[in-house]
Amino acid sequence: MEKLQTVLEQIVPTDRQAEAEAQKLLDSLTKPPGSLGVLESIARKIAGITGKAKPEVPQKTAILMAGDHGVVAEGVSAYPQEVTPQMVLNFLSGGAAMNVLARHAGAELLIVDVGVASDLPEHPLLCRRKVAYGTANMAQGPAMTRAQAVAALEAGIEIAEDCINKGAGLLGTGEMGIGNTTPSAAIAAFYSNRPVADVCGRGTGADDARLQLKIRVIEQALAVNRPQADDALDVLAKIGGLEIAGMAGVMLAAAAHKIPVMIDGFISGAAALIAARLQPLAAEYMLASHLSEEPGHAIILEMLGLTPFLRLNMRLGEGTGAALGMNMVDAALKIMHEMATFASAGVSGALE
Amino acid sequence: MEKLQTVLEQIVPTDRQAEAEAQKLLDSLTKPPGSLGVLESIARKIAGITGKAKPEVPQKTAILMAGDHGVVAEGVSAYPQEVTPQMVLNFLSGGAAMNVLARHAGAELLIVDVGVASDLPEHPLLCRRKVAYGTANMAQGPAMTRAQAVAALEAGIEIAEDCINKGAGLLGTGEMGIGNTTPSAAIAAFYSNRPVADVCGRGTGADDARLQLKIRVIEQALAVNRPQADDALDVLAKIGGLEIAGMAGVMLAAAAHKIPVMIDGFISGAAALIAARLQPLAAEYMLASHLSEEPGHAIILEMLGLTPFLRLNMRLGEGTGAALGMNMVDAALKIMHEMATFASAGVSGALE
Repeated sequence: MEKLQTVLEQIVPTDRQAEAEAQKLLDSLTKPPGSLGVLESIARKIAGITGKAKPEVPQKTAILMAGDHGVVAEGVSAYPQEVTPQMVLNFLSGGAAMNVLARHAGAELLIVDVGVASDLPEHPLLCRRKVAYGTANMAQGPAMTRAQAVAALEAGIEIAEDCINKGAGLLGTGEMGIGNTTPSAAIAAFYSNRPVADVCGRGTGADDARLQLKIRVIEQALAVNRPQADDALDVLAKIGGLEIAGMAGVMLAAAAHKIPVMIDGFISGAAALIAARLQPLAAEYMLASHLSEEPGHAIILEMLGLTPFLRLNMRLGEGTGAALGMNMVDAALKIMHEMATFASAGVSGALE
Repeated sequence: MEKLQTVLEQIVPTDRQAEAEAQKLLDSLTKPPGSLGVLESIARKIAGITGKAKPEVPQKTAILMAGDHGVVAEGVSAYPQEVTPQMVLNFLSGGAAMNVLARHAGAELLIVDVGVASDLPEHPLLCRRKVAYGTANMAQGPAMTRAQAVAALEAGIEIAEDCINKGAGLLGTGEMGIGNTTPSAAIAAFYSNRPVADVCGRGTGADDARLQLKIRVIEQALAVNRPQADDALDVLAKIGGLEIAGMAGVMLAAAAHKIPVMIDGFISGAAALIAARLQPLAAEYMLASHLSEEPGHAIILEMLGLTPFLRLNMRLGEGTGAALGMNMVDAALKIMHEMATFASAGVSGALE
């Protein structure tokens, strides 16, 4: 709890002065002002986050948090729970979509067991921070104790701080956990006050019957647990998940250390909501990579005040959207470093 | 004319069988079916274009065509015509946005003078294929003779074929030419039968007065020239541009050789319309990279039946959107080559 408290107190607003200087620099480059659109917004925002008018092209680390969910006992997922550890092994051997896209983005990929329901083998690429063997079934009671939620948050903080100490200048979040669109939809419904049906999607591919069941299970979880709206730790513990807590910890650590964090899709978004309820300034350090096919994602991003820059109809999670987003950050920052100015290139400006 | 005719006759429909095989392969990978959205569509489409179920990650070349426009005499552009050769020199020394984004995409960048209004120095990176010192003023008469339009088209074909012979498996189009949103809007208005005001934007940054002037000039160009709708060469010659013709040639050559071609923004889109009117099957070989801020671009893409995969509020041209799009192609094809299958990774499939 002490580590969490320290990080929450460390977070300050981003640097508007650095943003303004970044825009001035962008306007001096050989292109019509503003003509690079979102790339310019990204560069400007990262200037504000880092406090540097011309931020370096960052070393990138994607942190993939794995955890299981007791609520799968209700039949909410189209895939069996054994897929969580199977996919962790797939990540460790480099064969999942996220491995491919992290390599494509030039990002290091860190796999964290923060709550997988089975024992995983030792592996040099696996960060073992298991807080519990999955959450309890939130349709019957709290998914986690408050202490478990804090432990998972602090695991995320420690891992992110370790990455930052090793030179990471851009973090990305991703996850694996069969059933985890269910707590994510619960969090989205709870904070948006929208009907569960508005924010609940098919996850990995639920059919109509399973989707209806999933909606009923989430409604039940909200009714059984009655989370306290002014207490984000209570919300996280009762209707969240271990990997959701871990990702929220990563986001808070990034903000505390003035490092941008690339948010992936729906489940990362639910973690971002928790982080932003624990400390509203944390949202200023977040970049929304893509808009997921999950219907609740747009609602989450709107609550966070974030605009996704990619719309690729993806719904895979793992951090795959964040990896593609990291690629865009590199493009945006290379523009700042590698383009000539009107003056240096001898190019005429606009007519008066 | 013979070269153009040969290429037009070489273009055949893309390979539906290869597309279906590519989808089967994608569905065997460790992810819920379809969950990579647009990345899967790209991979499938390139399978159809190349006729290979698992296309290689391609060697990439972006071809940037530069040309000037006599219509700038009417005052349609916010920048002086001297910026065209100045920017060509900027491209040659590596300082323009397109240089940065082509490097970011791992693409070779080829600069072609197909119609700059002034003499350019010899340079190892400059491909000298000048057909004319800019077009004539289309508000007063045809922009080009039919022979000039064909010569510029064939220059594009030859350059693209040279790139393909040297191993390029993905081409991108881009351009530089002060004033070139004006002929592009004329082409878009002509083929869409929409009012010029619907398809005409601010280009590099026209103010309200200049925008109104630009609309009137385009209306005049259409009235003076009366292009023949069933004769795309007539349309290109009368209200097009040398770099627009060159890009259309690149697109036709790509289709003839079963190579995907990444279309940049509005001006590239106008060239794509010409290519698709010369040979409708050519559109099957095109990928739309991004949706430009220019209002006519969405209308052009709809006519072509293409969906852009990036929406980044960009309006720079040069091929910058195409370069970012090339990056997405690499990501999509790496997915096909580097991901494990459910069987190879021992991951369970969906529950029945």
